[in-house]
Amino acid sequence: MASAGVACLPAIRRIAVFGGTHGNELSGVFLVRHWLKDKSELQRPSLEVQPYLSNPAAVQRCTRYVDCDLNRAFTEENLSMPLSDSMPYEVKRAQEINHLFGPKGNENAYDFIIDLHNTTSNVGNCLIMKTSKDDFTIQMIHYIKNTLIHDNCQVLLLENPAVQYGAVRTVAKHCIGLEIGPQPQGVIRANILENMRKLVNSALDFAHFYNEGKEFPPCTLDVYRAFEKVDYPRDSEGQIIGIIHPQLQDNDWKQLKPGDPSFLTLHGRTIPYNGSSAVYPVFVNEAAYYEKKSAFLLTEKVTLKANSVKVSKT
Amino acid sequence: MASAGVACLPAIRRIAVFGGTHGNELSGVFLVRHWLKDKSELQRPSLEVQPYLSNPAAVQRCTRYVDCDLNRAFTEENLSMPLSDSMPYEVKRAQEINHLFGPKGNENAYDFIIDLHNTTSNVGNCLIMKTSKDDFTIQMIHYIKNTLIHDNCQVLLLENPAVQYGAVRTVAKHCIGLEIGPQPQGVIRANILENMRKLVNSALDFAHFYNEGKEFPPCTLDVYRAFEKVDYPRDSEGQIIGIIHPQLQDNDWKQLKPGDPSFLTLHGRTIPYNGSSAVYPVFVNEAAYYEKKSAFLLTEKVTLKANSVKVSKT
Ligand SMILES: [Zn+2]
Ligand SMILES: [Zn+2]
Repeated sequence: MASAGVACLPAIRRIAVFGGTHGNELSGVFLVRHWLKDKSELQRPSLEVQPYLSNPAAVQRCTRYVDCDLNRAFTEENLSMPLSDSMPYEVKRAQEINHLFGPKGNENAYDFIIDLHNTTSNVGNCLIMKTSKDDFTIQMIHYIKNTLIHDNCQVLLLENPAVQYGAVRTVAKHCIGLEIGPQPQGVIRANILENMRKLVNSALDFAHFYNEGKEFPPCTLDVYRAFEKVDYPRDSEGQIIGIIHPQLQDNDWKQLKPGDPSFLTLHGRTIPYNGSSAVYPVFVNEAAYYEKKSAFLLTEKVTLKANSVKVSKT
Repeated sequence: MASAGVACLPAIRRIAVFGGTHGNELSGVFLVRHWLKDKSELQRPSLEVQPYLSNPAAVQRCTRYVDCDLNRAFTEENLSMPLSDSMPYEVKRAQEINHLFGPKGNENAYDFIIDLHNTTSNVGNCLIMKTSKDDFTIQMIHYIKNTLIHDNCQVLLLENPAVQYGAVRTVAKHCIGLEIGPQPQGVIRANILENMRKLVNSALDFAHFYNEGKEFPPCTLDVYRAFEKVDYPRDSEGQIIGIIHPQLQDNDWKQLKPGDPSFLTLHGRTIPYNGSSAVYPVFVNEAAYYEKKSAFLLTEKVTLKANSVKVSKT
């Protein structure tokens, strides 16, 4: 019988690990390819773990996407669209993924998806959550952070509608995104791959211990909650006229105060951050976000709480 | 009257600065765009300096190239091909560049081209020469290296036919390539842009002092002469099965001895460098070279000599 205040939750049976959601983010591509040939590392007695290359055409071309961003394509509109040949490749993929790993919101959907990404920004080891209300996921991340305490993992919460998006991992009942950087697009770095591997294995360990009946006591989790993106300064034709300032470059997760340098023009003029309060910028200078009009994402520090979790015996 | 052993050479009047030869290498793109709007920084009394975006379609798409690599397209075959609509975009561009800045080999060609590139590899500030026999260019690089002594510039010589290619800058009588890294594709870093700017200005200063009559005494120049590329280990389908080893990663210009680690497989096996002598690897883990089957370039240290140079008074 579980103690009072314990969330007794179903077992986590089926976990998918997605790589290549963006075809030029290579840690996930290499890991998934390796695991498709040799699954031994992913095996846990209580789990069914499926590695999966989510955007194979983009991977083959070593490009982020073919027609449109797969990680923004998982919208209700796209999922319910009638299948047609003229449909963008990634919308077709989203529907196929929904069929294989969902349907989204259905009791037959996969229990958990870990989606592997890289970034050109200096976020280090970043775990992304889409909701503050999922005890299981908070507990998993808490476990990972404390197990890999020397790897300095940070947690990004993308719950605010202004920054949320139709991520492909949301097809499952629970999910996390892993963003490891800095790594250039189209490049595979051994140290980055090693970090990603450790994080995936730690997540699987947690799920297995949970399934075996381990009770995880109530915990708190310090996260960075994103609320707004800041674009580059641009001219009337939309061309960028200010680049990330050297004092901001590579300083993800570090406090940016009003008046601190944020951009530098090619005439040497510093453009200060003009918000009203201190913020914590993340995804500073991510290559793929130039076209999404995001030089960096603003976050604020919050502390989440999770109830104790324990697998239900039924 | 010039002293004995002095190369009396013509004035250097017309210099072009190319950016965006590869559309996702952004330092050159941003600098050339800036200079096209405001040329003041490039002005020297004795020079005509033309900034130029060499691959505008690739720049617009933020991709290395549209149909084929512009910096491999400058071959005799491509330059003499009859113009046609079905011609690859970059071959058309090569012909237009040959018309605007050449013709290659003709006395009316531009005197000098500086071609601006970035690389994901940790080469720092790298100056590329295509020949060991050009006194003027050796003297220019010697001047730049000694003027910017704290910026630790290294020189790469691509004279060996095994590593040479139809680079677009070869349309002019003399040329250098600047490769500044590490910078991801599609990203602009302020520190990298600053370095590139200093190098360009130093090159222009040299050309101007030369035109004004300054005699540069005989000099020697330590360079790294490339002779071979090393590909990634691959399986029978051409997939990469070994990634750059952490001990080699970021160690461009540092000696690699036979038996030193060079690659790491995803099973954790180290693959040693199996050459017969020590080498100096360069372009270690450059994103654009995966498809060119180059994990790193092998170089050997050599010392070049240049005669004194002085502008001819006629
Ligand atoms: Zn991604
Ligand atoms: Zn280039």
